[in-house]
Amino acid sequence: MPGRRSSGGTTGTSGATVPPARITIAEIAREAGVSAPTVSKVLNGRDEVAPETRARVEELLKRHNYLRRRARPKKTVGLVDLVIREVDGLWAGEVMQGVQGEVAGLDAEVVVTVTHATTAGPLRWLDNLAKRGSDGIILAVTDLTPAQRKRVDSLGIPLAVVDPVGSPDAAVPSVGATNWQGGMAATQHLIDLGHRRIGILQGHEDVLCARARLDGYRAALEGAGIEVDPALQQPGDFYYTTGFSGMRDLLALADPPTAVFASSDLMALGAYEAIRQAGLRVATDVSIVGFDDVPNAAWASPPLTTVRQPLREMAALAARIVLQGADTVLPGGMLRMELATHLIVRESTGPAPGMSTT
Amino acid sequence: MPGRRSSGGTTGTSGATVPPARITIAEIAREAGVSAPTVSKVLNGRDEVAPETRARVEELLKRHNYLRRRARPKKTVGLVDLVIREVDGLWAGEVMQGVQGEVAGLDAEVVVTVTHATTAGPLRWLDNLAKRGSDGIILAVTDLTPAQRKRVDSLGIPLAVVDPVGSPDAAVPSVGATNWQGGMAATQHLIDLGHRRIGILQGHEDVLCARARLDGYRAALEGAGIEVDPALQQPGDFYYTTGFSGMRDLLALADPPTAVFASSDLMALGAYEAIRQAGLRVATDVSIVGFDDVPNAAWASPPLTTVRQPLREMAALAARIVLQGADTVLPGGMLRMELATHLIVRESTGPAPGMSTT
Repeated sequence: MPGRRSSGGTTGTSGATVPPARITIAEIAREAGVSAPTVSKVLNGRDEVAPETRARVEELLKRHNYLRRRARPKKTVGLVDLVIREVDGLWAGEVMQGVQGEVAGLDAEVVVTVTHATTAGPLRWLDNLAKRGSDGIILAVTDLTPAQRKRVDSLGIPLAVVDPVGSPDAAVPSVGATNWQGGMAATQHLIDLGHRRIGILQGHEDVLCARARLDGYRAALEGAGIEVDPALQQPGDFYYTTGFSGMRDLLALADPPTAVFASSDLMALGAYEAIRQAGLRVATDVSIVGFDDVPNAAWASPPLTTVRQPLREMAALAARIVLQGADTVLPGGMLRMELATHLIVRESTGPAPGMSTT
Repeated sequence: MPGRRSSGGTTGTSGATVPPARITIAEIAREAGVSAPTVSKVLNGRDEVAPETRARVEELLKRHNYLRRRARPKKTVGLVDLVIREVDGLWAGEVMQGVQGEVAGLDAEVVVTVTHATTAGPLRWLDNLAKRGSDGIILAVTDLTPAQRKRVDSLGIPLAVVDPVGSPDAAVPSVGATNWQGGMAATQHLIDLGHRRIGILQGHEDVLCARARLDGYRAALEGAGIEVDPALQQPGDFYYTTGFSGMRDLLALADPPTAVFASSDLMALGAYEAIRQAGLRVATDVSIVGFDDVPNAAWASPPLTTVRQPLREMAALAARIVLQGADTVLPGGMLRMELATHLIVRESTGPAPGMSTT
């Protein structure tokens, strides 16, 4: 299988190389007072182990930082699981293309599970996965429950997260983007155009990257000596509807903003429509910057200035991590990585008008 | 496995029911002068059969209209393959949600192959598929080569097509939409608003549904006694760029149209931008109708009047066909089905101006 590396094996303690010597199954078994096959059963998620024994073995595996992937380096299934929250925006298409492009080169295929498409899905999905096997699981803006996480761990299937929702689990490799820098660059661009009343349409408050973008916005304003006005911060959830209503509310202010940073491209599209309905024009009357650079951004009229998040590259990297191992792909010991965002200037931003619009 | 029916079996000629008696593997073997296991090998796509023998058995299977699916009703893999041209528009998201929603209820999962994501993909994909097995293949705006088709047939995996590209193979179940009626409804809507100079941005000329939409447009014009002007017909390919350039060219005419039917929502978005760049406004100056009703349509500013193509339902039906058999899902003997399209009026269309715009 070209391109897919699998170093190591079950030969035990080589010891001499740079990474610390890896503990073997036999050693874990000795310490737990069970047989090596029992440890294997725990590693492979089989049922026939008593709960207390399983707990003891799990604990030892964790304490010794046993690398499960190494325990099963040879047999690949040829399937990678992409678990994604939904596919009704273009965000998902970008992630899928990234994963697909990567795994095709490694002779694997992608099983896509959309968690919002079915309520029964997530549970069944793990049952099915346990039966058919999987070479790796990529989670995209979605989280496993602790129980699911435990099950995946016990199956020994590598996991990686793209664009993590919350504080990433320290033990799971994750690939994000520099959201704080992106929020700062978007806002700085508006400041450079002369804007001083700059609003923000915020993403979902439970998603960490939304907070990072907000903080980047604030940092840029403060850096330019502009007061952060809470009235200019509209809550939202990354979707069109809250972009629309947030912009409508901003335009209804006595002193509305002349420029707005939308925390996603979809929210920016909602803002466009609120601007149109107010009889105003994007760029001429109100400048808008989005975030993501999904294809929608370039298809908007006028084409949207936005912060490009390299979603394909992020997804491809996550795929490489699950297929080749984080220790092969990422610099020594690193599990968390953020790829750079950058501003793409199109036609939705322009110089600040002489005074605030009405 | 609830919900998944598997009638019949290998018990042979029951004969008395309405459908014609099915020929058995034993009968095929007898007629071909080979053993029954040899016929099974051919059916299962195994290699150990001499080419001439395989050809003879294939020919007999075809002549007797042997229903392969019936030969393997029990063992399901739990995987359905969705082969899709690309995932960079929202069309793909709709299809994926349709398939996903359907197979989740039938306890199966979806392997997605994007043919444009890799050149090596389509060939490898079939190799992988032969190894791991698949309960069915759904092709979405993509075609198999004759060689691929033969391979799929010999593997005995059911096939269905969503939104066929060309003239659908009579032997393959396909689910399309009423494209001709949709083109007619879009154009009639513009006629009802008083428009007489009505242009069209055409889809890709090699795709049959583009032709059907064009013919629907012509039929509506002729039905209203309006002359069909070839100058108002712009070639295109369903994508944003040809929508933009086609609209730009229409607006450059000495007597430009006051309304345009775009053969896809993406082309309509391109038209929006050409209208904006010409200093005109959608609806007020030029009415636009799209086709598809992907989420982009409602997110456009102004929200796009369009012909809804029930992509999710089409994809779900294709999934049901491959998992339950066309004869279970579709009325007796039918293999081709078109689901209804209907016009959704939003804000991109308005009454014809007193005279043509400039």
